[in-house]
Amino acid sequence: MIPNNLIEKKPSASRTVMNEMVLPNDTNTLNNLMGGRLLHWMDIAAAIAAQKHAQKIVVTASVDSVSFGKSIKLGDVVTLEAEVSRAFSTSMEVYIKVWAENIPSGEKFLSNEAYYTFVALDRNGSPVTVNSLVPETEEETKRFDGALRRRQLRLILAGKMNPDDATELKALFTKD
Amino acid sequence: MIPNNLIEKKPSASRTVMNEMVLPNDTNTLNNLMGGRLLHWMDIAAAIAAQKHAQKIVVTASVDSVSFGKSIKLGDVVTLEAEVSRAFSTSMEVYIKVWAENIPSGEKFLSNEAYYTFVALDRNGSPVTVNSLVPETEEETKRFDGALRRRQLRLILAGKMNPDDATELKALFTKD
Amino acid sequence: MIPNNLIEKKPSASRTVMNEMVLPNDTNTLNNLMGGRLLHWMDIAAAIAAQKHAQKIVVTASVDSVSFGKSIKLGDVVTLEAEVSRAFSTSMEVYIKVWAENIPSGEKFLSNEAYYTFVALDRNGSPVTVNSLVPETEEETKRFDGALRRRQLRLILAGKMNPDDATELKALFTKD
Amino acid sequence: MIPNNLIEKKPSASRTVMNEMVLPNDTNTLNNLMGGRLLHWMDIAAAIAAQKHAQKIVVTASVDSVSFGKSIKLGDVVTLEAEVSRAFSTSMEVYIKVWAENIPSGEKFLSNEAYYTFVALDRNGSPVTVNSLVPETEEETKRFDGALRRRQLRLILAGKMNPDDATELKALFTKD
Amino acid sequence: MIPNNLIEKKPSASRTVMNEMVLPNDTNTLNNLMGGRLLHWMDIAAAIAAQKHAQKIVVTASVDSVSFGKSIKLGDVVTLEAEVSRAFSTSMEVYIKVWAENIPSGEKFLSNEAYYTFVALDRNGSPVTVNSLVPETEEETKRFDGALRRRQLRLILAGKMNPDDATELKALFTKD
Amino acid sequence: MIPNNLIEKKPSASRTVMNEMVLPNDTNTLNNLMGGRLLHWMDIAAAIAAQKHAQKIVVTASVDSVSFGKSIKLGDVVTLEAEVSRAFSTSMEVYIKVWAENIPSGEKFLSNEAYYTFVALDRNGSPVTVNSLVPETEEETKRFDGALRRRQLRLILAGKMNPDDATELKALFTKD
Repeated sequence: MIPNNLIEKKPSASRTVMNEMVLPNDTNTLNNLMGGRLLHWMDIAAAIAAQKHAQKIVVTASVDSVSFGKSIKLGDVVTLEAEVSRAFSTSMEVYIKVWAENIPSGEKFLSNEAYYTFVALDRNGSPVTVNSLVPETEEETKRFDGALRRRQLRLILAGKMNPDDATELKALFTKD
Repeated sequence: MIPNNLIEKKPSASRTVMNEMVLPNDTNTLNNLMGGRLLHWMDIAAAIAAQKHAQKIVVTASVDSVSFGKSIKLGDVVTLEAEVSRAFSTSMEVYIKVWAENIPSGEKFLSNEAYYTFVALDRNGSPVTVNSLVPETEEETKRFDGALRRRQLRLILAGKMNPDDATELKALFTKD
Repeated sequence: MIPNNLIEKKPSASRTVMNEMVLPNDTNTLNNLMGGRLLHWMDIAAAIAAQKHAQKIVVTASVDSVSFGKSIKLGDVVTLEAEVSRAFSTSMEVYIKVWAENIPSGEKFLSNEAYYTFVALDRNGSPVTVNSLVPETEEETKRFDGALRRRQLRLILAGKMNPDDATELKALFTKD
Repeated sequence: MIPNNLIEKKPSASRTVMNEMVLPNDTNTLNNLMGGRLLHWMDIAAAIAAQKHAQKIVVTASVDSVSFGKSIKLGDVVTLEAEVSRAFSTSMEVYIKVWAENIPSGEKFLSNEAYYTFVALDRNGSPVTVNSLVPETEEETKRFDGALRRRQLRLILAGKMNPDDATELKALFTKD
Repeated sequence: MIPNNLIEKKPSASRTVMNEMVLPNDTNTLNNLMGGRLLHWMDIAAAIAAQKHAQKIVVTASVDSVSFGKSIKLGDVVTLEAEVSRAFSTSMEVYIKVWAENIPSGEKFLSNEAYYTFVALDRNGSPVTVNSLVPETEEETKRFDGALRRRQLRLILAGKMNPDDATELKALFTKD
Repeated sequence: MIPNNLIEKKPSASRTVMNEMVLPNDTNTLNNLMGGRLLHWMDIAAAIAAQKHAQKIVVTASVDSVSFGKSIKLGDVVTLEAEVSRAFSTSMEVYIKVWAENIPSGEKFLSNEAYYTFVALDRNGSPVTVNSLVPETEEETKRFDGALRRRQLRLILAGKMNPDDATELKALFTKD
């Protein structure tokens, strides 16, 4: 279990692109893509990115709050781009960006951004230490830094941390 | 569009139960239910509950942070119970509780709790005012009250509210 | 194989509710739910109920005659409620009731009632003795009693019983 | 609506063969084909046969009692053969025979026989008169004759006929 | 590994018929069957035929050029007929013919013809020698003879044969 | 129908990446990805690329010979990259490259290369003229040039061209 084979990796090494066409069974009676189907696709794209970073089997540990804006329609192409934004000891935060495009009309818009976290497992299903992540670009660094704050929020929301101890997060509300 | 046909409804009026059996395609190579599939089922159960409350077509507006604990295995039965926890003007917050059960072994555990929000739409896809919700039990009242705080968090996370204006939420971090 | 761990259970202990939304792929070109898809959902709901009663893996042994009346449409919510109606030595009869609801219009109707039977199996696939069932309500008792007659009909239809020996069933036709 | 374009057709004109490979999602945790999936396939094969006879859109009206014997395994090939066994005014009875085969081992067995009934509909969803069926072979004639008896049983089981009026069926129990 | 249990088989021994109904999820936004779905069905029908000939597990080795003509619509019935056209040492060429039919309108047309090749495998995934094929009819013999030419084309297209060595194929272009 | 809005586009403008995880239902009993499923994914990736180039709805016109080498296993990630390689008047040839990767083991290999062709359609389903393609890199130019030869082969294989008239292709066999 000594993780002496662990390395430093960049976010781009885990970058994963998926394109999905919205089919009838993905839509409600107004021909809009159902939110649950999109959450499912996001989970798969993010899981592949986490797998690439850790080179291990991974399981979803959490998804952060996701909001859905403009409706995505039957026949649209959904493009998902996922990459690891921060690695902790046995878990990873993955950032996912989703666009929807009606190709014949040329209309394309950013639909969602979300953070999923994954835990890396060995063949027996026990958590294993993962490679560390080193951000390169300014945007990657910003996401890397924000990961601590998001993690505190997750712990509070899951009832595993006292709001008072969430130093990073608390600063948001008490800055003056 | 005058909502003179709107009524007051109880959470129990929208209560919706779903049972799903975990099939091979729902699992990863460790035979664990994938998080994305569960998010998809939760969305369907919650959408039915929201439909029942509003008696309208509904679309997912957001899902709050969800964390996944103990793994759910191939062949397990997943039970989802959803009910509207608060109605706003054209949107509803739905509370979902998920249990997993290995029936032959008799092992059953609470897997997740989550909040999804939905917007009610008319046949043209425009938002419409929904019935109001009146909580009955103590637990329902607590969830009803907490809905304001969760809504502020959603607005902040979606970049639509300044943390400083989130009075309900701010209290969590600054109480002394 | 000595079933000294068997207990008496009530129908309510196996009661299982499923809600399914009718999606495009479940329908024919008139946008009606296909009968075969409904039979599939009924089998899953009934199998979960039988599993709950027996706390074993179960396989479908038979389905009794099912008739389909009013058509169920795309977007409708189908609610299935299943519970064990009688236990025999290694098999169980499960009673299933199906409602269809167009939620926006508020129209809901009883679509079907059916009986499926299941055999309980151990890990090697051999039949095992199941818990006994003790009906509580009047309706449950009536279904419990009728189970013998339905069983005779199944055996005759499967060519495994001579109509002359079907005492329970014969009474239906020769009462005078 | 005057059916002057109706013709007499033979059972062989509607004969429909389907082959399906049993995939993981069709099976339970013992790797056996689930009964509900088979009922779904039988419905599709039978519906195609009924469509061929009537040259109309058809909807499932009922399925007669079906019993499942020997288990069908993952990877097996299921062969379904369906043909109309009798036409009534707007409905048809379809006979389906199902074989399962493990091709590498060469083991093949008759798994099921069943009767489904369908109603023919016009584009507005109203029942329409169908072509008549004229049996050719001895076996087809026997099934054609038995259709009346099965129809009485269906009507009794659906609570639409008094057992006393089921002359054809009654004979089975009172012959002496 | 001595194939002393191998026999000579006729094309008709592997003949496999599949009927599929075109459902919403199989179609694009013009309600036309997507080519990829048809290629998938053809692969399954052809694989069953190859399995029947070899009585082994088989894997797809290649598909020859397939062209799609007239569009197949939602609700149409697709009939696939596959049979082994030639056996090589561990591989088989399968000929598939596809018809599409709009049953209510009575319109039916030949949609495609194609050749897939399969390799037979033992339980460890190693190629095994297959039964030989002996064509019976004139058409089967013609396809049997053409198989050599198609095989050379496949090898050239896969970059495994020099066009100059493709004697059979070369004749097509240099006959004078 | 005057295509005065047509423009010149580069292959990179249509480049489309898809990542798919191999799930149980995609595999045969040896846990290998079935060829037909891969052909289906290739069709979707290629259709999105063709749509991007033409900004129209597209339908598959043909797929060129595809050969499958090393088997792809359950749990592997399949990466597909598609781009238009040449535009004709109303049709486009799309080049697709497929890799398979077992991420935990780090093993990745090129699985397939293929050419699909698509026809662009207007809302009434009639073919429409598409944007022209101008290759940029050396590799793109080579594929652009080879497209004529592949087109002749398609026409010959579909019985729509006499081998003698296939000047481009003939040169392959008669060069000396």
